[in-house]
Order: sequence, then C-alpha cells, then structure tokens
Amino acid sequence: MFKAELKSDTLKGLVNIISTLIDEVKFSISSEGITLKAVDAAHVAMIEMFVDKGAFTSFEADSVELGLDLDKVKGVLKLASSGDLISMEQDDVHGRLIFKVGNITRRMNLVDTSSMSDPKVPQLSLTANMTVCVDELQKGIRAADTISDHITLRAAPDFFDLSCEGDTDSVSLRIDKANMPMLDTPSEVRSMFPLDYFSNIVKATPSGTMINIALDSDYPTKLNFSLADGSVKVDYLLAPRIESD
Amino acid sequence: MFKAELKSDTLKGLVNIISTLIDEVKFSISSEGITLKAVDAAHVAMIEMFVDKGAFTSFEADSVELGLDLDKVKGVLKLASSGDLISMEQDDVHGRLIFKVGNITRRMNLVDTSSMSDPKVPQLSLTANMTVCVDELQKGIRAADTISDHITLRAAPDFFDLSCEGDTDSVSLRIDKANMPMLDTPSEVRSMFPLDYFSNIVKATPSGTMINIALDSDYPTKLNFSLADGSVKVDYLLAPRIESD
Amino acid sequence: MFKAELKSDTLKGLVNIISTLIDEVKFSISSEGITLKAVDAAHVAMIEMFVDKGAFTSFEADSVELGLDLDKVKGVLKLASSGDLISMEQDDVHGRLIFKVGNITRRMNLVDTSSMSDPKVPQLSLTANMTVCVDELQKGIRAADTISDHITLRAAPDFFDLSCEGDTDSVSLRIDKANMPMLDTPSEVRSMFPLDYFSNIVKATPSGTMINIALDSDYPTKLNFSLADGSVKVDYLLAPRIESD
Repeated sequence: MFKAELKSDTLKGLVNIISTLIDEVKFSISSEGITLKAVDAAHVAMIEMFVDKGAFTSFEADSVELGLDLDKVKGVLKLASSGDLISMEQDDVHGRLIFKVGNITRRMNLVDTSSMSDPKVPQLSLTANMTVCVDELQKGIRAADTISDHITLRAAPDFFDLSCEGDTDSVSLRIDKANMPMLDTPSEVRSMFPLDYFSNIVKATPSGTMINIALDSDYPTKLNFSLADGSVKVDYLLAPRIESD
Repeated sequence: MFKAELKSDTLKGLVNIISTLIDEVKFSISSEGITLKAVDAAHVAMIEMFVDKGAFTSFEADSVELGLDLDKVKGVLKLASSGDLISMEQDDVHGRLIFKVGNITRRMNLVDTSSMSDPKVPQLSLTANMTVCVDELQKGIRAADTISDHITLRAAPDFFDLSCEGDTDSVSLRIDKANMPMLDTPSEVRSMFPLDYFSNIVKATPSGTMINIALDSDYPTKLNFSLADGSVKVDYLLAPRIESD
Repeated sequence: MFKAELKSDTLKGLVNIISTLIDEVKFSISSEGITLKAVDAAHVAMIEMFVDKGAFTSFEADSVELGLDLDKVKGVLKLASSGDLISMEQDDVHGRLIFKVGNITRRMNLVDTSSMSDPKVPQLSLTANMTVCVDELQKGIRAADTISDHITLRAAPDFFDLSCEGDTDSVSLRIDKANMPMLDTPSEVRSMFPLDYFSNIVKATPSGTMINIALDSDYPTKLNFSLADGSVKVDYLLAPRIESD
C-alpha cells in the first residue's frame, strides 16, 4: 500500500536529480519515506536519495517497491503549476500508480523492478571537505563549455577552484576560503571528472543549494546536499578520469 | 469595393482560428460584415465564421469575394503590436489587398477563389449541450499529450469529462456540473475525436473564452463561441472516430 | 603591452557589430584606443570601428596588434551579466589574451594576424544625407522578410523610404521629413542592397541608436553611428546591387 501527496515542486526537484542518471527508477518505500538508488549504465556516477515522509503533505505506506518511468512522471509534472499538490496512490490490482493533479487523473503503468539491482554506495574517506553554493559551480560549468570535455576540481588549504584545459585555451573559476562557508584540507588535492556528468547534476540542483563536496587526488568525488527544507537528502558519487602525463 | 480598419488583435484572433484548417481562405464580404467558411482537405472538420462590421473600427464594403493566403496575413500581423490598428483596402485594378500598419504599406496579391467551394454546414440536433471554459479544455489537451492520438468527450447528467486511453496508461479530466456554467443532457453520451484537430482548435481559442459544446454518441461535435466581444461568431464541427469493439 | 577593463555591455555591443561581417578580427591597439577594420569574404560590406580609451574603465596600451576569434569572445560575454566588468590583459609570453570576469579567468589563444589585411575605406561623397532611428530600420526589415532578397533605400526631398518588391507582393516603410531628425537631398536618389547584409547590421545596432545614412543612386550606402555614449564610432559601407531594367 502506498498513498501520498506532495507539492509538485518537491516531486519535480527529485525527479530532475534522478533523471540525470537514469530513465526508470525503483522507489523503495517504507513507512518512513522513500529511498531511490541509481547508477548510470556506464557506472560512472551513482545517486542515493532519501525522501523523508516529512517531505509529503500526507504519507501512508507499507514496505513496497514501485518502478517508475521518469519521463512519464515529468509529463505529470507539466500539468501542475508551482504550488499545486500532486497525489499518488498505488493501484495494486492493475499494477498502476494513480496520480491526481486538480481535476486530472493520470493512471500510469508501473515498470517491472525485478531486473533493477540496488547499487551499493561505497564508503569513502576523502582528504578535502568543503561547502560551495551550487550557483558558483553552475557559473564554472558555463565557463567550461566548449573548452574541454573534462573539468578539474582542486582544493587547497586556502582556495577551491574548477578548471578546464583545452589544447590552446583554458578557463578557471577560483573561490577563496574567505568566501566559502567551509573549506578543510591539510594539503592540495585534485581530480579530473567528465564535464557532462558533473554539469548534469550541478544544473539539476536548485539555485541557492549549498553542496558539501568531498575530494581527493584521483579519487571519486562525493557531492552531498539537501532539498525541500532538509527532508530530501542526496548523495552523488562521481568517478574520476585518471590524468595521464 | 472593400475598405476597413480593425485592431490587430481581432484580425489575429480570427486568422489563428481559420488557419487551424486551411492556408488559403475566401472572405465573402457584404455591407454587414465578412463570412468565412473552411473545410480541411481530409473533410474531418469545418469552420464557419461571421465577423460583424461591429468588429471593425471602420468598415465600407459592397458584396465582394477576396481570396487570401493566411501565412502572408500572419506576416502582416507580426508587424503590428497589440492595440495597433490595421487597415485593409481592396486594389481592384491590380487584384491586391493593401494593408497598412503605421507607416508600413504591404501590398498583397489576392488568391484566385474560383476553385474554392462553399462548404455546407450540416444542421445537427445533438443530445447533450454544455458550456465549458476553453482553459479547461486546454488543460485536458496538455494531459492527453503522448497518451494517445484520440480524445473522448463524454457528457453525463452530472459531469463532463475528457479522457484518453493508451495501451498501458490513461488520463482523464473531469468537471462536475456544479463547476460548469451549463450542462444539459438527459443521458450519458460520448464520442471519440482525433486529438490533433481538437487540440488545434482549442489551442487557437483565446484563454477565458466560453465554448458551447453540443455532443452525442458517435456523432460529430459542434463547438460554438464568440470572439471580440461577440462581434465574431465561430461554429466548428468535428467528425468523430467511430470506436470499434 | 595591453591591459584594459570595460563594461561587458560595451564589449558585447562592438562584438555584435563586427561579427556581422567576420569571425576573426585584428584589434589595432594604440595608447588612444582600439581600431577594428573588417571586410566580409565577398567584399560586399566593410566596417571601420574606433573604440576610444574613454570607452574603458581603465586602459593602458602600447602599439600592438591582437587577433581574436569573436566566437570565443562571445563565450566570455555569456559569463558576464549586464553591468559586470571584463578585464583583458595580453600575455605576450604565451601569445594569449587573459580575460577576467568576477572570479573566472579565461585564457584565450590569439589568432595570427599576419594574413589579415587592412581594408582601405574609400572616401565617398554622396548626394543624400539623413538621420534615422535604427528602430525604424528594424521595423522595415521585419516587414521585408519573405518578400524579396533585396531592399531599396530611397531618399527624396520630403521623405525617406525602405521598400521591397517581390514577384507579386511588395512592402514599403515611409518616414516623412517632419518625423526625421535630419534629411537633406536636392533630388530623389535610390539604391538597392542585399537584404541579409543590411538586416544583419541593422539588427546588431542597439535599439534607440540614431544612424546617419549617406545615399546616392546606384552607389554604396554609408551608415555611421556611435555606441557607448559616443566613445565607439562605427562606419559601415555596403555595396549596392545594380538594378537591371
């Protein structure tokens, strides 16, 4: 059994994040909320998201797994204005989820989840930890465009920077420690990442969000942030591209 | 002889409606106003429109027929801002219509009307009659998108609904009688229509317009509404797609 | 040596103008400002622009020539909001120009200028001289669209007009002398020009700009205007298309 109602903006926020990696996702539902785990087909990035029942205006559920096609959910979101409520109710008999937005009823076939594995999110202890406003990362990504397919994140004791090196041109965005909520690293570390993955997750994160970044040299980076006043927690892990000399 | 002036918004409104069906149209002009009749090439839908001389800021005409290419008229409309006046004057010598918008003069060749027949609008007596705000229909069309190529209109004594059934998914928009200006049917009736035609006419109708709908089971539906404070009357007839069991 | 800072809007304005003709341009820099000359590949139009050091918020330079790829400069402009300052500094060692916008540093390879010739702007004495607000020309271009590939400029003692003649249709925009800041011609003159060139320069000129036009019969036309409160001067010369009878 699953029956819940939430603001369209909240649902939109989490669908935007998840759909940077995959089109079909398994909602693992319990009486406490919903857990979503996703890894992209190339196994370059991984998301783990927990949506607390506090993110919903009403929430009733037993333990159940629902597979959803995110493109269809985006279609439902287009029917809602900002501030509208969307209700969802499982129709166990027909294997559907029933969405209601105002006087519209949308019956959506569930996707088979039997072939969807639960990716294991590795525990990593990384040297550098910092907090950056996503707007700065979004600005850095716009600057990186057309320069290269990769972006380098670097943390030093007194600054953090994003940089891109092309064959002839380069660009960098630097934030001094004084302008950051938090920056903690004993030494300089840097890793290079695929620009498209980094760009997709950064663009999908709402303006104003503070992102915690854990970074090391030639290690995955871990991005961690909250949405919907803390009731949605997102962990994003992105594998590095090892630089050759 | 034909010489008239009207607000660009009025001309735009009627061109938008007519061009959902055809590109070239015959304006049948009399001293009382202009009549336009159009049927699409596949004979699925038909429009009859009467534009009273009261829709114009000035209007002088004898009986005359003018054939116009609506894409060219749309080009003239792009030169006008909302609230601008557009004047039209027949140039009988050169077979042209001369549009003036501010200090721009646009001379447009008329289209030969000899091959344009006058479609006969059939008289239909349909069981259900109701009035719906076009905004609700527009919302229903957005919801129907990607579900199916057809849309079903249904009227019952206490509600009206639009619905779309796909192979696995479905969507419906329901309006209770209490929320409608008028709903009158002794029994439930329903017909299915091609979504693209229904969508085109509904999207071309200005937001806020009240549409009178006449409906029966497996019969054409008749949409009837006014524009420009009642000085433009539109009748739209759409053939059903007969459902097979 | 070249080091300067200016408002992003000023840089954007002059890049928009120059890039109507060419993608790569030579900045000829002196202690007084920057001169840009450009002729398109087909030698139909020519621009000469002088950017006085007064257009910059700071300006230090010796005589130097820098070749720039305007598409890359447009990329830098996208990183700046209206009102932002952009600094540029020559990196002579690496043959680069270093742009800074806020906390972003963009290093851009210079283009080889050895093959870029300095077009000679011919001195012309033309019969008709007038001043027109670019908004009127922009309106005329919108009207000309789809009618023909050419546009005719005509000046008479008491009016100026733009017109386009197609096979069946035509359009014209007329401005009476009373509505023009200046119109001076002893006789009627007219020349026809390629619409795409005329359209590109007119669209790239900021709304509200007053353009001085010099015109003669079957001669090039000369457009002359200022940007950035007079600190940027633009001369644009466009060859006529000689009309055959």
